[in-house]
Amino acid sequence: MSETIPAGSVGVVTPQIAKCDTPFAFTNGAALSSHELVYETYGELNSAGDNAVLICHALSGSHHAAGFHAGDDRRAGWWDLAIGPGKPIDTERLFVVCSNNLGCCDGSSGPNTINPDTGKPWGGQFPQPQVQDWVRSQKWLAEHLGISRWAAVMGGSLGGMQALQWAIDFPDWVEHCVALAAAPGLTAQNIAFNEIARHAILSDPDWYEGDYLAAGALPTRGVALARMVGHLTYMSADGMSDRFGRELREGSFTPNDNAEWVFQVESYLRHQGSRFSTQFDANTYVLMTRALDLFDLAGEHGGDLTAALSNAQAKFLVASFSSDWRFPPQRSIEIRDALMAAGKSVTYANIETDNGHDGFLLPNSHYEQLLSEWMRRVGPS
Amino acid sequence: MSETIPAGSVGVVTPQIAKCDTPFAFTNGAALSSHELVYETYGELNSAGDNAVLICHALSGSHHAAGFHAGDDRRAGWWDLAIGPGKPIDTERLFVVCSNNLGCCDGSSGPNTINPDTGKPWGGQFPQPQVQDWVRSQKWLAEHLGISRWAAVMGGSLGGMQALQWAIDFPDWVEHCVALAAAPGLTAQNIAFNEIARHAILSDPDWYEGDYLAAGALPTRGVALARMVGHLTYMSADGMSDRFGRELREGSFTPNDNAEWVFQVESYLRHQGSRFSTQFDANTYVLMTRALDLFDLAGEHGGDLTAALSNAQAKFLVASFSSDWRFPPQRSIEIRDALMAAGKSVTYANIETDNGHDGFLLPNSHYEQLLSEWMRRVGPS
Repeated sequence: MSETIPAGSVGVVTPQIAKCDTPFAFTNGAALSSHELVYETYGELNSAGDNAVLICHALSGSHHAAGFHAGDDRRAGWWDLAIGPGKPIDTERLFVVCSNNLGCCDGSSGPNTINPDTGKPWGGQFPQPQVQDWVRSQKWLAEHLGISRWAAVMGGSLGGMQALQWAIDFPDWVEHCVALAAAPGLTAQNIAFNEIARHAILSDPDWYEGDYLAAGALPTRGVALARMVGHLTYMSADGMSDRFGRELREGSFTPNDNAEWVFQVESYLRHQGSRFSTQFDANTYVLMTRALDLFDLAGEHGGDLTAALSNAQAKFLVASFSSDWRFPPQRSIEIRDALMAAGKSVTYANIETDNGHDGFLLPNSHYEQLLSEWMRRVGPS
Repeated sequence: MSETIPAGSVGVVTPQIAKCDTPFAFTNGAALSSHELVYETYGELNSAGDNAVLICHALSGSHHAAGFHAGDDRRAGWWDLAIGPGKPIDTERLFVVCSNNLGCCDGSSGPNTINPDTGKPWGGQFPQPQVQDWVRSQKWLAEHLGISRWAAVMGGSLGGMQALQWAIDFPDWVEHCVALAAAPGLTAQNIAFNEIARHAILSDPDWYEGDYLAAGALPTRGVALARMVGHLTYMSADGMSDRFGRELREGSFTPNDNAEWVFQVESYLRHQGSRFSTQFDANTYVLMTRALDLFDLAGEHGGDLTAALSNAQAKFLVASFSSDWRFPPQRSIEIRDALMAAGKSVTYANIETDNGHDGFLLPNSHYEQLLSEWMRRVGPS
């Protein structure tokens, strides 16, 4: 934890656990007899229950969206930029909930938790979740918390796609929907990047068919590579050039034979991969990227996105980031156009930035102002 | 070999070997006491010696640029599209030479050949070549073949960069220079992709610090991953969407729990990676990507590309491919602009295509017409 809590922070937060003792059925037919969801909340639910906002996290995110955990939590939650007193998602007015998705590795039931039926880690046997499963699971959590409607459901990247799925699957639950840096589905190129990441993990000798925990191993090489590939797709080419250029970490272009030249960008990627590989569960990475690949907002409507969105009742904010080449602005424009064709209320903005896909996580005055102004309409006035 | 040789083919070709018994010094200070270069030629050198064209290959290319080898060579050489009687690089008129770069794995001295000083495979001990080393090595080969000037030096991607280096390093040797899908140097993003590929190889337990041959192993997992990453950067997002879409190879989106969903694009990439991993040497992949990373056309002129090109005497053809995101059109435009600023003769074209970086290898009527018409000025009239 930071020695001093910065102004505008929600402060020290404590994750909570919700235990669900009724069976949960996945879209693919699998089921959990019971499960747990870990979540955080910021702010207070008002007596009318009309100020609850659900935050959906992205691929490697968690329930820890804002503030600091007690102890040695030196980094604030992943969306601390946006959540807190006086911030765009204003915890003075709003009750904010963020849960770790089912199948993830930060406390909710997932591959690295114990399968109650066997007493051993789930490992490679945890069911493959899809985005609509996470939505149903979060609906259970909402009811568990005494919430009957979300003033807003919001997120970036996979989290934004989950917010859109919420608006489609439970239209009367979602008053506002915010989808940042999202897409209605993955392209072949997107899937290919995910496949390379999975292939890196699955070809690691320490993978053990997903049962590495039982084998006392960790496929850290594969996970590090997967993260390096992923991370590369989150940054823009121009942003990388500005940040790293062609600078060597040390030495020159003419070292002794076979000495290791290391460019700054290589050193950075290796560090990112290495750090992630000991923190993130390999099975979860496989399940999450699969869930992304399988996500298809218009899938149940034969590819007709307008039809898929026709029953939604939410007012939408859709935003893209100019240098995002993972889910480029055009993908957000597809969502905007379908919403307009379906007669929905939608605000769309393209944020000029060199931050690439990571744009929704990073400071940018235009982005923060947009979010701030748009969020004023969310919750009781 | 094809049962019937197609019209316009150079036919059956036999690789030749040139043995150099004088020491070769690399830019980085290392040296070979002797070495061999494998090469192919198509057409005949005329008595005036003014019809010789040098083809430089790209990262995973070889000396086998056109025609078929005897035996079971079912695929024509990598640039068979462009080289042959009546083709853009017309072997009725021109004498075409293509050599395997030093450090590669198709017959020239490299990591998978025997180090004469030790009697063992070079493995991880082969010196790191740079593009200017390959140029000097090819100059030795030219002299060995009785050639004193190239009517043209040409290539795509790394091969195009090598052609540009030729025009700078030996200006009076290069009458025409063709650089396709090239760049004056790599960006941080380019380097990052190469770093991921190398990291995949170097973290393979069968890498053995590069001495896998001595250990009786092959880091095929790492090389397959490296190739998957590379291959992905050669294709355009739109080209992949058109070719693969979101089609599953088989099955549906709701198979049984934990069944393996495989999209067409995944199956394709795995096949590409797997095939390459048994055909291409891992050390060579590391050396070649390093040579790319270190390539900096303006490096000896403090980043001033115009100054770097000022002594060139060649007439230039620079072409880019609209959907190439590895070396996008803007990189070719940088070269064109520097050539114009240096007062050189340059033709520039951007070919409209969905083929991405691979555009220079694939059929496209505009591209083939451009190359055909421009090549008419090369060699004796």
